[in-house]
Amino acid sequence: MRILKWLPILAIIMMVSLAGQAFGSESVAGGNLESLANVQKYSRSIHIMGMLLVGFGFLMVFVKNYGRSAITATFLLVSVAIPFYFLKDSLGILGGSELDIDRLILAEFAAASLLICAGAVLGRLKMTQYMLLGLLFIPCYAVNEWILLNGGFGLVQEGLFVDTGGSIVIHAFGALFGIGAIITMTTQKEFESPIESDATSDRFSLLGSMVLWMFWPSFCAALVAPADVPATAVNVILALCGSTLATYFASVGLRRKISAADIANAALAGGVAIGSTCDQTVPLNAFIIGILAGGVSTFAFAVIQPRLEGIIKKTDTCGVLNLHGFPGLLGGIAAIFVVDGISPGVQLKGIIITVIIALTAGLMTGKLISILGRRAEPYLDSEEFELE
Amino acid sequence: MRILKWLPILAIIMMVSLAGQAFGSESVAGGNLESLANVQKYSRSIHIMGMLLVGFGFLMVFVKNYGRSAITATFLLVSVAIPFYFLKDSLGILGGSELDIDRLILAEFAAASLLICAGAVLGRLKMTQYMLLGLLFIPCYAVNEWILLNGGFGLVQEGLFVDTGGSIVIHAFGALFGIGAIITMTTQKEFESPIESDATSDRFSLLGSMVLWMFWPSFCAALVAPADVPATAVNVILALCGSTLATYFASVGLRRKISAADIANAALAGGVAIGSTCDQTVPLNAFIIGILAGGVSTFAFAVIQPRLEGIIKKTDTCGVLNLHGFPGLLGGIAAIFVVDGISPGVQLKGIIITVIIALTAGLMTGKLISILGRRAEPYLDSEEFELE
Amino acid sequence: MRILKWLPILAIIMMVSLAGQAFGSESVAGGNLESLANVQKYSRSIHIMGMLLVGFGFLMVFVKNYGRSAITATFLLVSVAIPFYFLKDSLGILGGSELDIDRLILAEFAAASLLICAGAVLGRLKMTQYMLLGLLFIPCYAVNEWILLNGGFGLVQEGLFVDTGGSIVIHAFGALFGIGAIITMTTQKEFESPIESDATSDRFSLLGSMVLWMFWPSFCAALVAPADVPATAVNVILALCGSTLATYFASVGLRRKISAADIANAALAGGVAIGSTCDQTVPLNAFIIGILAGGVSTFAFAVIQPRLEGIIKKTDTCGVLNLHGFPGLLGGIAAIFVVDGISPGVQLKGIIITVIIALTAGLMTGKLISILGRRAEPYLDSEEFELE
Repeated sequence: MRILKWLPILAIIMMVSLAGQAFGSESVAGGNLESLANVQKYSRSIHIMGMLLVGFGFLMVFVKNYGRSAITATFLLVSVAIPFYFLKDSLGILGGSELDIDRLILAEFAAASLLICAGAVLGRLKMTQYMLLGLLFIPCYAVNEWILLNGGFGLVQEGLFVDTGGSIVIHAFGALFGIGAIITMTTQKEFESPIESDATSDRFSLLGSMVLWMFWPSFCAALVAPADVPATAVNVILALCGSTLATYFASVGLRRKISAADIANAALAGGVAIGSTCDQTVPLNAFIIGILAGGVSTFAFAVIQPRLEGIIKKTDTCGVLNLHGFPGLLGGIAAIFVVDGISPGVQLKGIIITVIIALTAGLMTGKLISILGRRAEPYLDSEEFELE
Repeated sequence: MRILKWLPILAIIMMVSLAGQAFGSESVAGGNLESLANVQKYSRSIHIMGMLLVGFGFLMVFVKNYGRSAITATFLLVSVAIPFYFLKDSLGILGGSELDIDRLILAEFAAASLLICAGAVLGRLKMTQYMLLGLLFIPCYAVNEWILLNGGFGLVQEGLFVDTGGSIVIHAFGALFGIGAIITMTTQKEFESPIESDATSDRFSLLGSMVLWMFWPSFCAALVAPADVPATAVNVILALCGSTLATYFASVGLRRKISAADIANAALAGGVAIGSTCDQTVPLNAFIIGILAGGVSTFAFAVIQPRLEGIIKKTDTCGVLNLHGFPGLLGGIAAIFVVDGISPGVQLKGIIITVIIALTAGLMTGKLISILGRRAEPYLDSEEFELE
Repeated sequence: MRILKWLPILAIIMMVSLAGQAFGSESVAGGNLESLANVQKYSRSIHIMGMLLVGFGFLMVFVKNYGRSAITATFLLVSVAIPFYFLKDSLGILGGSELDIDRLILAEFAAASLLICAGAVLGRLKMTQYMLLGLLFIPCYAVNEWILLNGGFGLVQEGLFVDTGGSIVIHAFGALFGIGAIITMTTQKEFESPIESDATSDRFSLLGSMVLWMFWPSFCAALVAPADVPATAVNVILALCGSTLATYFASVGLRRKISAADIANAALAGGVAIGSTCDQTVPLNAFIIGILAGGVSTFAFAVIQPRLEGIIKKTDTCGVLNLHGFPGLLGGIAAIFVVDGISPGVQLKGIIITVIIALTAGLMTGKLISILGRRAEPYLDSEEFELE
């Protein structure tokens, strides 16, 4: 069991070592304009890093008395995902990029998807299990990404699937993988213990939400050509405005009072849903997609989740199905209606493949991880942290 | 009353729809150097978004037990202001820009001014009233901006009014509009209930303050030519250093002990005051303007506000008159002394017009909003939020 | 005593005034590509400012009931350091740059080193003493920087000392200066009062840590040529991933349970240690340097610090020796092994000079500051802040 704790780190060292020499050569090449464009991508990659750490990290702090754990888990998941995905890319398998900065951004995308997945199981894993989750998740993510975007296995013709900002590849995949994982992982006793937040944990969670909101345009426009960045940013911001407004109205309409969790989460649904079409649609459509996403997401939080959990007796801790699952699928499907010259068949096929891979891989991963222990008690920092 | 809740969102949809086709065409045009320069503006627009959400949002969290409301109001105000201002710009009325990225930044400026205004009435509005405030504020803001910067009504000759970073157009306008609004809005009972903070809410507020401080150079330099960005940034940072130091000394000097609210607020006064001249002055002047602004602002918090509130029996919740009002006016007037070739008459005329429009429009808006209900009890999240 | 409070601000005004005319002329010159590259540096300078304020500021909030003081001290230290260093640079002494943006970044580096130093004495100084610390620290820092990087006194040949991201010049110098200061400053009674944190202060501290983590690549790559920025960023991020993973395993291994302080601090050790070689090494080496740094830092927090403090009876409040001292030295020495064509003698000489100057100057500064009063009681905001 002790050796097992060192396994992840050993595995990464070994494999990064194999790939060490593949890097670092590109940095002196490249004309001046090109390197300036790459530095601009770099700037967006820092924004994405802010989303991964402060954004997702603090969004998950809403669970009272589980703040240190949620933040530490975020740190560890990012630190597993990025080198591990980097390794894959530098080995040139599954469609890796040759540009340092593109590799970094693709690795961050993978880490984002992993953090989404972790939101579903939050509070039920020990730190070593989170890391194991990372090591199992990344290869599955990479395979799905390769199939959808790089023509892997010849299933989806390269370049035809529309998903610039990852509504399907990043968000829906992560959420559905997480749902798969909780199905095989949650115990009855755990399901019965309610998740509690308080005024302080809510404010931290809203902080995470705001950090995600503000940097979201850089997430969607990360790999977009310079000339398209402003229009993409405008679309993303309008989608977020739309979902924020819709979330407020839906939250009050469905619950009578506002839920802080709705605001912290569903307000971001516009960013999730605009991902697929962020660089290919017009502001009005973006705004409407945002409104729809905010409405769907709030409805899922307020109505679908309680019912679904009553049926399957499993807990999706952060409600990732509501924030990333449904709005992600909505965004992928919306592309069929708003993008000129899109192939609806390819788009639907890509979505279906993602659903199947994510759920199946999630189920198997949950089973595997639960071998290393399952939780029955409510989430507490005191379990793994030194407290005064 | 129920239909009224949907009014804002409906209004925005309808109007954005009219303007939908005006966007999105510019993104493929533009030489390479130009698009890189636009992406750099984009980067600053993200910084400004951080100020709007995390900065202003958390600065307003200092009111204990009103944190969720302050943050949610921030989300909603931004989500109303940006699409609504965007709409105006895309219709090409009131001097709109044709460049996506400039539109975005101008819309963010409008949102900043609205958030400043909201700081005055914080805690006295329901969420629907905040949104209504946004819908009423933006057109007034746009008219004032158009008069001062685009030669609207021929009152101020285009290009002569000096206000790059918005000391007058953004800060003073927002603050005075807010003061106008509270005059017609505050009830006696509400005035008598003190505003309370605690150690946690103070730290969140200082977080907001630091986020504003760090991104302020991007606010002032948002639309500045690339070659002038570094010098502008240096001026803004020196002004902020000056106001931070002055605030500390003034706070201790005037109160004997430091007030955390002084530090969180008045430390930013240098940023407010340097706005007008940020790209046209030298570092020494910037530092002095910052020191003066910090001193004036702290004096206003410690001495003027308690006396003024005693006289008019109204509460400026966040003290926006102290942070944005006086320092903004100071900055606008300072331009007369530090900018070569400035027309003092034009500068003063612009300032006076702003004061008149802001106060008048604020008074009327406050009256209008108070028709939808006034508060008498102290500010509490529990009124509109589901709490455990 | 009252006049003394105004001394720092007066000194700065006087001296900036001497240098006022030296600025502001470069902004219109410069080709277009060059000014775009400078704006990209500007973007990184804002990231660094985020590290200084939100990062270091909140990392220091872990001391319960000392949050307002830690944040205010951060504000004041930054506001003393930047104008004061700027002044030096604009006078052209000690190797100042002529480019506005480079000056700004170098001034931020100096402020970072000062904040590191302040972490050692945190909780033992009044605000005026923090500012005095700043005024005494900056000249010492500038002299050391000048010797190591600009051939000052002819001790180290210009351009041969390898320290792009400041492992030695910024981190080790600041930490060792702080250690020098506490030796002459801590009283017996103060040493005996334990430092306490709680769940909320821990979460704020982890927020600061995440902000440092996310912006660290911009700190290391601040002055790097555009074409080298992406590879540098990749190295820094891999080093941070390495130290984060190593910290977790070392913390659990050495303490049985995780310490939130270890995660908040030692996870950053990779960033400290990769500083010297960030633009000159390959990803594998960066990852290994990060792992070593995380291990060393956690070991220092868990094992060395308690023993050392038992011997010297002094408290290093934030453990800066563990986070910035040892990992900084590790990074400077690592350069000897990973950088091609490095001169080991020069590298070692530079490190030894830094250790000597920092410790000596720290000892003298601590003595000087303790003349203005020493503390005996535990750290409390109530001493200097108005609380309800």
